[in-house]
Amino acid sequence: MIKEIREHRSVRKFKTTPVAADVLDEILLAGTRASNTGNMQVYSMIVTTERALIDRLAPCHFNQPCAMQAPVQITFCADINRFGCWCEQRDAMPAYDNFLWFMFAAGDAMLASQNVALEAEAHGLGICYLGTAVYNAERIAEILGLPRGVVPVTTIVMGYPDGDLPPLTTRLPLEAVVHREVYRDYSVTDIDRLWAEREASPETAQLLAENDLPNLARIFTERRYTAEANIAVSRAYFEYIKKQGFFNQ
Amino acid sequence: MIKEIREHRSVRKFKTTPVAADVLDEILLAGTRASNTGNMQVYSMIVTTERALIDRLAPCHFNQPCAMQAPVQITFCADINRFGCWCEQRDAMPAYDNFLWFMFAAGDAMLASQNVALEAEAHGLGICYLGTAVYNAERIAEILGLPRGVVPVTTIVMGYPDGDLPPLTTRLPLEAVVHREVYRDYSVTDIDRLWAEREASPETAQLLAENDLPNLARIFTERRYTAEANIAVSRAYFEYIKKQGFFNQ
Repeated sequence: MIKEIREHRSVRKFKTTPVAADVLDEILLAGTRASNTGNMQVYSMIVTTERALIDRLAPCHFNQPCAMQAPVQITFCADINRFGCWCEQRDAMPAYDNFLWFMFAAGDAMLASQNVALEAEAHGLGICYLGTAVYNAERIAEILGLPRGVVPVTTIVMGYPDGDLPPLTTRLPLEAVVHREVYRDYSVTDIDRLWAEREASPETAQLLAENDLPNLARIFTERRYTAEANIAVSRAYFEYIKKQGFFNQ
Repeated sequence: MIKEIREHRSVRKFKTTPVAADVLDEILLAGTRASNTGNMQVYSMIVTTERALIDRLAPCHFNQPCAMQAPVQITFCADINRFGCWCEQRDAMPAYDNFLWFMFAAGDAMLASQNVALEAEAHGLGICYLGTAVYNAERIAEILGLPRGVVPVTTIVMGYPDGDLPPLTTRLPLEAVVHREVYRDYSVTDIDRLWAEREASPETAQLLAENDLPNLARIFTERRYTAEANIAVSRAYFEYIKKQGFFNQ
């Protein structure tokens, strides 16, 4: 398996060492080599390294130490603005202000981000994805000056790892996420079997003790991603993408 | 740069040689190593190799030769079904039936797909992304038997390349998609400069001659992705994700 894929883990403790400009450019260039919709590249990568900006962005990422500590923060955005500008300048009528193109643009941004993650790791850097880019997209957009047609979809923080790399995290067995030929829905026995290893792990035992809850699933629903937060963020983000012009048609 | 990232191109002509099971599993396993939301793995990969199924799926991909020819087709889906089943079986209340979790699940699927693409290439395979997974998501879902909570977001076709690899495709200059510190919106001069190379290329000259149109932008807006199709697909896909239970809250 490609070394960077096999050894990928999220790194959340970084040295203050900056990332050299040529290394960073190579990483960003790797991002652009990913497949993208119609080779239109309807995404943007905002690379933030200035202390003052990182400090302003920190609350958007709930002041997670890694977001404050990492010397580089890249906000990946769906972007129909640039392509639309080009069309208008050429007397062509852009029609990307709709949900389909939000999907394509967000997808392009995600593929680019995965190349960036792997290429960063090839240079000895560590990275962590921050889903909080979606939680506080509108505030991030204000700080980064995003125009209409541009929406944050994910953030990667990046830097040289401080201390030992964390162990690889476990995954469900391959058969949990792979369906052969067609989708096979899960029986009660399947679900028990697929989660058995994770539920029996020492990590789970520790989480249950810390959270005073009877099982791992309830840690997810009652602690990590509560219904209340899910619904509030969901509505806010959807309203925001409409406001940014992805639901005009 | 990681070899597979640097040398990635879409391959659209495949030999009939099947992909060995152990190679395919290694590729799928690479998919699962990608970062994902809360390590919840809210995506599924449907691996289709049966001739009859590939033939039924072909019209969903507009009968593109590569979709009919490739021995392996992987449909990457946003999937809150599996995690939701587990929660319900553990007396935990899942609350993922909303747009936020569609975004997270679709994002997880995209990151997994990029690892799959690169790992496939490391094994000498060629791949092509098919955005048509979104165009005909509902019909694909019927053929693959996707339950509620599962939505196709992209498809990769895969096989051993037949003939020479196509040349690498060009990209806009790095400065077109990268913004330093904050977003710098594009001036008229910027747009002209960023597209200059592509507009002046022999490929563009050939396209203009073939399409009888005055510029490349109008090939995109009037031939490749028309407003009419964009709007129709956009509405259908949005209705479909609602129907699949991603807009209950």
